[in-house]
Amino acid sequence: MVEATLARIRPPDGDAMTQARALHARLTKPAGSLGALEELSVRLAGLAAACPPPLPEPGAVAVFAADHGVHRQRVTPWPQEVTAQMVANFLAGGAVVNAFARQMGASVTVVDVGVAAPLEPADGLVSARVRPGTADLSSGPAMTVDEARTAVEVGIRVAGDLHDGGAASLLTGDMGIANTTAAAALIAGFTGATAADVTGRGTGVDEPTYQRKVSVVEAALRRHRPDPADPVGVLAALGGLEHAALCGFLLGAAARRIPVILDGVSAVAAALAAAALAPHCTAAMVAGHRSVEPGATVGLRQLGLHPLVDLELRLGEGTGALLAWPMVASAVRVLHEVATFDAAGVSEK
Amino acid sequence: MVEATLARIRPPDGDAMTQARALHARLTKPAGSLGALEELSVRLAGLAAACPPPLPEPGAVAVFAADHGVHRQRVTPWPQEVTAQMVANFLAGGAVVNAFARQMGASVTVVDVGVAAPLEPADGLVSARVRPGTADLSSGPAMTVDEARTAVEVGIRVAGDLHDGGAASLLTGDMGIANTTAAAALIAGFTGATAADVTGRGTGVDEPTYQRKVSVVEAALRRHRPDPADPVGVLAALGGLEHAALCGFLLGAAARRIPVILDGVSAVAAALAAAALAPHCTAAMVAGHRSVEPGATVGLRQLGLHPLVDLELRLGEGTGALLAWPMVASAVRVLHEVATFDAAGVSEK
Repeated sequence: MVEATLARIRPPDGDAMTQARALHARLTKPAGSLGALEELSVRLAGLAAACPPPLPEPGAVAVFAADHGVHRQRVTPWPQEVTAQMVANFLAGGAVVNAFARQMGASVTVVDVGVAAPLEPADGLVSARVRPGTADLSSGPAMTVDEARTAVEVGIRVAGDLHDGGAASLLTGDMGIANTTAAAALIAGFTGATAADVTGRGTGVDEPTYQRKVSVVEAALRRHRPDPADPVGVLAALGGLEHAALCGFLLGAAARRIPVILDGVSAVAAALAAAALAPHCTAAMVAGHRSVEPGATVGLRQLGLHPLVDLELRLGEGTGALLAWPMVASAVRVLHEVATFDAAGVSEK
Repeated sequence: MVEATLARIRPPDGDAMTQARALHARLTKPAGSLGALEELSVRLAGLAAACPPPLPEPGAVAVFAADHGVHRQRVTPWPQEVTAQMVANFLAGGAVVNAFARQMGASVTVVDVGVAAPLEPADGLVSARVRPGTADLSSGPAMTVDEARTAVEVGIRVAGDLHDGGAASLLTGDMGIANTTAAAALIAGFTGATAADVTGRGTGVDEPTYQRKVSVVEAALRRHRPDPADPVGVLAALGGLEHAALCGFLLGAAARRIPVILDGVSAVAAALAAAALAPHCTAAMVAGHRSVEPGATVGLRQLGLHPLVDLELRLGEGTGALLAWPMVASAVRVLHEVATFDAAGVSEK
């Protein structure tokens, strides 16, 4: 399944991009006046191999939830049970991701890819638990390579199911207490950055916890010596199950040539893994926002992506991706709906 | 009318802001994790004197259109007739502001406050022409003080009419070939910045045009010696009719305690005039985006406002305000809809 997906990922279509640039020059606005949104719309034309590309409506958020063995290293002040409690909150519609999704008219699907506590079946919950949380990445591999591959497949399947169900764009979400530790380790593993460069304060940790978190990431990098040429191996050694599933979700979007908006640092970690497996998959990615986690900026730089929103968010769940979604839709809408100088009878300069 | 409006503008309500901060601390998210959107929602609680403040839906854009006598100084490569042509494009729904407004579910109203060419009555057009374009601000006052005051009243009336018609938030828009020259002069006049600090390339001018534009602004400042203690006098000397109307629009929103999202450099120029008339009116203002025009950044700094979007847009029309609108709505929605830790059964750290 992974190989079949990778084989479907193609480079962006240059003709469609050329058409989009030429169309922009004829629309009733000064050339370049939409700034970063013009290039975004050109990229999405290349992704879809069509000008204009389809409107990205409706959008669908998938929140991949999992627990982390590294939690026992006290890298976060939050108890592990919060992962399952927040899943229940998502399913009840009470979290920030739900409020933002209602604002944007997007759906929210929660995917249990590895929550430690048992979860009751529920509407809006995809049960695809690979294992009940990872092992401690600082004392051994977080999971086996087979488990990592299975989690990647979960993400591919969720992307396909949401697209088949009518979603025209996908948005990443994640939930997992301690998952910024795994995300930092992955970003260091894929970029060569140091633990101190990529480790942040997550949902809010004090100085001793922060120092411990950096040490844990350093120890993990020393132990596993991650090799970016073996992306699934890196995910297995350092990842969370949600990072592996997000990697598959991004690959699935790219294979279907639909845009996928990255949320925060967990999505960036997954994007680095996906890009290592299939470099052209970045054509499907839109960087939703710049998380305050330093690893997000390090990873986005390597991916060559510029975030649309920069408001010091550090919540995760998909909230940053949702804030960016109307901009993506607006950028595409311009190519569909704005009149040309000729058609509108507007003089040019 | 202006005095009655000014008298209604009150400081933000501290109790509602305190309640909003306390509510944020109980919602199921790490404290502060929504970054700039948390403080925004607190500000809007203070504006409305209610926690939560009303959802800002639906939004209404008013595009104030006018022509500029300074056009004859060749400060722009665009012919003056484009102002009226673009008004026709707005009314036909073919401009970028229309596409963005459809995306956001917002209405677009065009207000002719001083277009030079005759315009046919049309649905969506408010005819409130004070005069057919300003005089050349570099060789005399752009308009009389009475005309400036009348234009301010137009803006107050439009804000009131849109609010009475059901709009829960207002968004500024503007159209006027050469209006970035007037905006730069106003911003210099209200901030004390130099012409070179605030003058930009507008919709795209070459180097000789840019140098001429700076000289024109310098000459206007030397001639008029603007006094920020006489805001209507500054508007009359240096303004566009749309800037004066936008000033009234902002005052009208503040008097009714509803949020108004600033678009680009013309809105910022108007906001400086409004704040000089009624300092508390900034409580109603949300900076939608950071225009590439340098005057916008200079003005926002003086106003103490931080833009939500920063994507190198320089189109005007209300496009930057529209991109920010879903963020404003999302910020408020959090206070309405997100569950508390207690109610959701989520453990705290």
